[in-house]
Amino acid sequence: MKSKIEKAQILLDALPYIREHAGKTFVIKYGGSAQVNQQLKDKFAQDIALFHLVGIKLVIVHGGGKKITTLLDRLEIESEFKDGLRVTSKESMEIVEMVLSGNINKEITSLLNHHGAKAIGITGKDGGFFQAKPLKEGKYGLVGEITKVDTTVTSKLMDNGFVPVVAPIAGSVDGVGLNINADLVASKLAAKLRAEKVIFMTDTLGVLDKNKTLLPTLSKSEIVKLIEDGTISGGMLPKVNASLEAVELGCKKAHIIDGRIEHSLLLEVFTSEGIGTVIK
Amino acid sequence: MKSKIEKAQILLDALPYIREHAGKTFVIKYGGSAQVNQQLKDKFAQDIALFHLVGIKLVIVHGGGKKITTLLDRLEIESEFKDGLRVTSKESMEIVEMVLSGNINKEITSLLNHHGAKAIGITGKDGGFFQAKPLKEGKYGLVGEITKVDTTVTSKLMDNGFVPVVAPIAGSVDGVGLNINADLVASKLAAKLRAEKVIFMTDTLGVLDKNKTLLPTLSKSEIVKLIEDGTISGGMLPKVNASLEAVELGCKKAHIIDGRIEHSLLLEVFTSEGIGTVIK
Amino acid sequence: MKSKIEKAQILLDALPYIREHAGKTFVIKYGGSAQVNQQLKDKFAQDIALFHLVGIKLVIVHGGGKKITTLLDRLEIESEFKDGLRVTSKESMEIVEMVLSGNINKEITSLLNHHGAKAIGITGKDGGFFQAKPLKEGKYGLVGEITKVDTTVTSKLMDNGFVPVVAPIAGSVDGVGLNINADLVASKLAAKLRAEKVIFMTDTLGVLDKNKTLLPTLSKSEIVKLIEDGTISGGMLPKVNASLEAVELGCKKAHIIDGRIEHSLLLEVFTSEGIGTVIK
Amino acid sequence: MKSKIEKAQILLDALPYIREHAGKTFVIKYGGSAQVNQQLKDKFAQDIALFHLVGIKLVIVHGGGKKITTLLDRLEIESEFKDGLRVTSKESMEIVEMVLSGNINKEITSLLNHHGAKAIGITGKDGGFFQAKPLKEGKYGLVGEITKVDTTVTSKLMDNGFVPVVAPIAGSVDGVGLNINADLVASKLAAKLRAEKVIFMTDTLGVLDKNKTLLPTLSKSEIVKLIEDGTISGGMLPKVNASLEAVELGCKKAHIIDGRIEHSLLLEVFTSEGIGTVIK
Amino acid sequence: MKSKIEKAQILLDALPYIREHAGKTFVIKYGGSAQVNQQLKDKFAQDIALFHLVGIKLVIVHGGGKKITTLLDRLEIESEFKDGLRVTSKESMEIVEMVLSGNINKEITSLLNHHGAKAIGITGKDGGFFQAKPLKEGKYGLVGEITKVDTTVTSKLMDNGFVPVVAPIAGSVDGVGLNINADLVASKLAAKLRAEKVIFMTDTLGVLDKNKTLLPTLSKSEIVKLIEDGTISGGMLPKVNASLEAVELGCKKAHIIDGRIEHSLLLEVFTSEGIGTVIK
Amino acid sequence: MKSKIEKAQILLDALPYIREHAGKTFVIKYGGSAQVNQQLKDKFAQDIALFHLVGIKLVIVHGGGKKITTLLDRLEIESEFKDGLRVTSKESMEIVEMVLSGNINKEITSLLNHHGAKAIGITGKDGGFFQAKPLKEGKYGLVGEITKVDTTVTSKLMDNGFVPVVAPIAGSVDGVGLNINADLVASKLAAKLRAEKVIFMTDTLGVLDKNKTLLPTLSKSEIVKLIEDGTISGGMLPKVNASLEAVELGCKKAHIIDGRIEHSLLLEVFTSEGIGTVIK
Repeated sequence: MKSKIEKAQILLDALPYIREHAGKTFVIKYGGSAQVNQQLKDKFAQDIALFHLVGIKLVIVHGGGKKITTLLDRLEIESEFKDGLRVTSKESMEIVEMVLSGNINKEITSLLNHHGAKAIGITGKDGGFFQAKPLKEGKYGLVGEITKVDTTVTSKLMDNGFVPVVAPIAGSVDGVGLNINADLVASKLAAKLRAEKVIFMTDTLGVLDKNKTLLPTLSKSEIVKLIEDGTISGGMLPKVNASLEAVELGCKKAHIIDGRIEHSLLLEVFTSEGIGTVIK
Repeated sequence: MKSKIEKAQILLDALPYIREHAGKTFVIKYGGSAQVNQQLKDKFAQDIALFHLVGIKLVIVHGGGKKITTLLDRLEIESEFKDGLRVTSKESMEIVEMVLSGNINKEITSLLNHHGAKAIGITGKDGGFFQAKPLKEGKYGLVGEITKVDTTVTSKLMDNGFVPVVAPIAGSVDGVGLNINADLVASKLAAKLRAEKVIFMTDTLGVLDKNKTLLPTLSKSEIVKLIEDGTISGGMLPKVNASLEAVELGCKKAHIIDGRIEHSLLLEVFTSEGIGTVIK
Repeated sequence: MKSKIEKAQILLDALPYIREHAGKTFVIKYGGSAQVNQQLKDKFAQDIALFHLVGIKLVIVHGGGKKITTLLDRLEIESEFKDGLRVTSKESMEIVEMVLSGNINKEITSLLNHHGAKAIGITGKDGGFFQAKPLKEGKYGLVGEITKVDTTVTSKLMDNGFVPVVAPIAGSVDGVGLNINADLVASKLAAKLRAEKVIFMTDTLGVLDKNKTLLPTLSKSEIVKLIEDGTISGGMLPKVNASLEAVELGCKKAHIIDGRIEHSLLLEVFTSEGIGTVIK
Repeated sequence: MKSKIEKAQILLDALPYIREHAGKTFVIKYGGSAQVNQQLKDKFAQDIALFHLVGIKLVIVHGGGKKITTLLDRLEIESEFKDGLRVTSKESMEIVEMVLSGNINKEITSLLNHHGAKAIGITGKDGGFFQAKPLKEGKYGLVGEITKVDTTVTSKLMDNGFVPVVAPIAGSVDGVGLNINADLVASKLAAKLRAEKVIFMTDTLGVLDKNKTLLPTLSKSEIVKLIEDGTISGGMLPKVNASLEAVELGCKKAHIIDGRIEHSLLLEVFTSEGIGTVIK
Repeated sequence: MKSKIEKAQILLDALPYIREHAGKTFVIKYGGSAQVNQQLKDKFAQDIALFHLVGIKLVIVHGGGKKITTLLDRLEIESEFKDGLRVTSKESMEIVEMVLSGNINKEITSLLNHHGAKAIGITGKDGGFFQAKPLKEGKYGLVGEITKVDTTVTSKLMDNGFVPVVAPIAGSVDGVGLNINADLVASKLAAKLRAEKVIFMTDTLGVLDKNKTLLPTLSKSEIVKLIEDGTISGGMLPKVNASLEAVELGCKKAHIIDGRIEHSLLLEVFTSEGIGTVIK
Repeated sequence: MKSKIEKAQILLDALPYIREHAGKTFVIKYGGSAQVNQQLKDKFAQDIALFHLVGIKLVIVHGGGKKITTLLDRLEIESEFKDGLRVTSKESMEIVEMVLSGNINKEITSLLNHHGAKAIGITGKDGGFFQAKPLKEGKYGLVGEITKVDTTVTSKLMDNGFVPVVAPIAGSVDGVGLNINADLVASKLAAKLRAEKVIFMTDTLGVLDKNKTLLPTLSKSEIVKLIEDGTISGGMLPKVNASLEAVELGCKKAHIIDGRIEHSLLLEVFTSEGIGTVIK
């Protein structure tokens, strides 16, 4: 009986967090190991289902990763890289879009529906959701930057009890699809939706200091310093920049968490200490 | 981190139960040690707050107990007992009503509000909620039996996000208050509200067999046998009868649980095995 | 037939007043003889029922009076008085609360329900309605002054067609009940609800001038003079101060009327001349 | 003060009737002296305004009378009469319609608006309200009998807080207007609307027996006898037949009252004894 | 098949105009040949039915014309004219009102209902819609100028799916009807309703320049010049002034079109070039 | 001007059809040349936009065709065919799903959004829309037959003003996608939605008789005969069977039309004679 009572206590410890977040909107950038490892995928879906059930409104944004490369390789479509970005030709864009919105997006949608959160997969092309123009006047081909976000689609889906799952493909004025960085889709959406949280699931512990110790909270000025002295660098830089942009444009808090930990979302949101870095 | 993940798992284990009960109505007969011991009182209020938060509609019915006797004694009002019932004179009824609706009811209401479930204390006199007539033509004075229940009040309060806390005092055609057995108030209400569950919090483990082993589930025919052979007797008899009445008239399930166990409500409702006896 | 037509004419004379007040909120401080004399009680309840029926939203606030003293005496709980206020010990507070919310409140609620106005009795503890802290840092024990009013409870009850009947007991941060002057509860509520009227039922004609003639209307500046020159004094002083407070903080008009007159409420509200003093 | 209190008592005597009828629908056939005498007109409008204010839904149906004859005479349009009905030619129909819907209807509408009941004047042609075909295959020219009633118009107007005032002109399949007996318009409407009451305002006391004594209530079988033995005859016959039709097809009660009495409507509805004849 | 496809293309050409105007309000002053010629009447009603169906909210205002004169002549009521206005005596006002609201209004209402647009005929007297006072202190008898417009009636009718058809008769404080210029009723309503368009149907092509060429668009300053140099004069002057008033007080655009052209409304609204003069 | 008036007449000829279909649901199977030829694609999108604007609720179901074969060939995935069906291996299913839901579906969605109908692309996996099991116990690999349709998703999308565009991929109990015949998806949906029409866009004129003349309407018994005598055969057989299934299970009418004709949808729905075959 004692262990049962401990169980009850754990349930109740979550009570204030549930109360705090019910009715609020979270935008979650899903990616990294959590999107690949089968066990982590199930844990992720369970967390989302619980959030959904206790009344949190959710938008999931996902990226693509290796599947795109694999298919491009099989089709012998070569890719040039500039400044770390894949220069996306019209031919490869067609593959990018098919993989993102026809394969990965539907896999996540299925996964969430299977765990009880009614998910609907969409891209920027659905219902005029978001539009883009080629980045730096087309220097990287069909890599785009977002020019317009209309959250009517996501708001109506959420109001009807659905969880929108968003592939990072934008529409454009002339109907062509554009490839968008998923972190930026998440931050733009979180800002436009005046979300309570945007949460980036990564394959690191969070933002670390020089001694590789986790920094649990960061302000804008602290971030500026850490970028200047090189503490924040490499792959963490774009996550931190996306976080800053979200927070400056209307989202309350940005979280960078370690998606390799089971139930990382639940632990970050429903425990007092959290597990990653919060940027306010 | 491991213990954290175990915590998350426990939260998620409750997921199917939350999903099952959200939007349903529970009538809870609060009484016994859980109403007296300060620690148990807090655990009870936490359980109710969690139920409330995850969307379960709740009606709490409470009894009186020693406080009534204490005050009657101090006022030197003597009570006659017949068939185990206090014969309630007009003078003692005034005290009964004051203690139940002016002291105990408000204490529970305060307790629940303090833990975050917006509670409102009412009696049968409020909004024409329920009426009674003297039991057995007045053999026990102002001890009454319910003649009419109008659940408009409780339904509107619940629809507006409140938890009604009900003292077992009925109104009557001529405006006099009548003293009602709280178990019967709970079972009548549960039936009329077509509740999912009526839960009786007692000071025993539940219904036990000859060997004092808990009987986890019981059907009507089993109960009839156990009453006939004397296994169910004494104080358990009225609980079991109230359970049967509720279930026969429209409530889905009746639970008799041990209120002395911390978080007994949560454990009964949110774990697969439960802790008491269920009557279907 | 002639007398019938006169009856019809009287009904119609009320038409402009009904039209003026339908949908507005009145807070009524019920007290004095009107709360004690059986005939006046019934007339009061009839008036409230009529107001309710023609669409006026109503909050009734009542006081306590002799019943508290009687019970304290019977229990041999002694009371000290300072500045005309009963210093309320924890022991006597329990009695005060029981009598106010368990006896008087339920009696009024029953009375109103009996006459057709669906009434629900509440105190400051129900649904987090109003909170207080000890007056003058506890000089008078548990006599309190209101620190927070949340009219959600009363507004929702009124919107659902109920008449809230309020006992002047406040909750507090630590859950203890506090004894509040009922006139001040009425004036605070009227201000917070931006009520059309707060009406104080007293045992005098209204505010009188030096010659004991009724003053039918008073402005703030007139009141200040009358207090300075001693015309307003004694028991009338707190009523007038409560009226002023209500009017200054958001209530449209305050009325001080003679509750000893049958149907005083109806006559004040539905006839052109009224019967008491109006403070704007 | 005594007379004031009597006034209050009279107001309160109406309370149970107000409560009984709030939200119900009354169809009132307005005609006779009450439509001609200026003083009676004002009393009628006051009664309607009071009914409207206490939440009774109202449809007023009126007839025409002398104004039509006067204008036809001035224009030297001759009328033939058959079986007591004016044979309505196309030329005279144009005058009938103009007088009914352009003069009398608007006068009543103005009168009611002036007394505070938001009235809107309509005929069968508005919003496809009711249609007719020529009676007895055109024997009486454009005198019609109702073939279709669509209460959408009146229901929507009443739901929006308006009082529809209906002139007895029907539309037809080919757009021509038809002249309808106003009593039958009232009874058809009352039946279709499942009204609580249809009230015919006449210039007699009600239905009288052989000794010219008022018969306060009548059943169908009693009516049949009174018609057979000639007690009900002449101008009363069509009123009684219209009443019977209304009651048989869905209206609860039909009243035949003396519109020459001031406030006859109020007295019939808001006093226990009433003033005319009720047919159930 | 080719002609069929052309048909489809024409339907589709209207698509952007339908999309632009759905949900907007048009006030249409119906008059001239379109109100007299049977073929034009049907085309007008078809246009209104199509507007109604694609979600445009409509108010139709009509005038009177020859029918009034004819009836006044038959009744040998003589009319004096001052400044081009008929000085309206009380006797002639009764005729004016009967013809406008009892004949012409109901004819238009019938016509529209017959073509599928649920129309309800009203005047300023219905539901307290609009009031007037005698123009120039009664110089022209009961010719009035509008003093108050309450669009509650028209808004509620339109929200319930009806098309209000308005006769230019105003109520007044003392209940008397007043004769109002229909163009001014249309412009006042359009302004108060913040309508998208007010459209005046006339018997000319629109506003013409010195060479009798149609001026397709006009600004305020252009109009001022054209009036000064006498280009706009005669019967066009009041139309242009009504247009200007509407546009200055809140209506988006005013149109003066040639009602003699079949489907002039449809052509003006649903084709790119339009057919008349637009004043912005 | 004459041609303009003809244009207006054409618009008005559509009026009865618009009135008839507003608020009804059409399921459209989009395919064949209309899905390939750029000009026909635009005409199709214009037709859909017009339907959408006049209040018709729409679900578009599309198939796949050559794009799937092309990509399978490029990836050197070989396909076996049995009974005319591609035996779908797990490897080829991944390609089928990507092309259908990630390429073709999004292209149609973009096209419709570009023409003003807010479209959202979904598959059976979104929101638990429809599920399947392998056909004939897996004889054709992952070719499936529908086992469950939950139209909540499409109904909510349509109620919120969106046009669902459906790719014929079903979910399954174990999360695997299944390839479904698009005609059958359309007929199942039309039946479940109790649609007014299901319209199959083909590359033939419709159902032809022995002399290759179009049969404009067909009943079930006529179809049975035509199948028996071999008149209906080949590619027309599955269309006719899907039509019959839809009509028998709850859809009002099924249409088989020639998608090669410009604006074939508009012509079929908005002209009296239509252009294809209707099955009732």
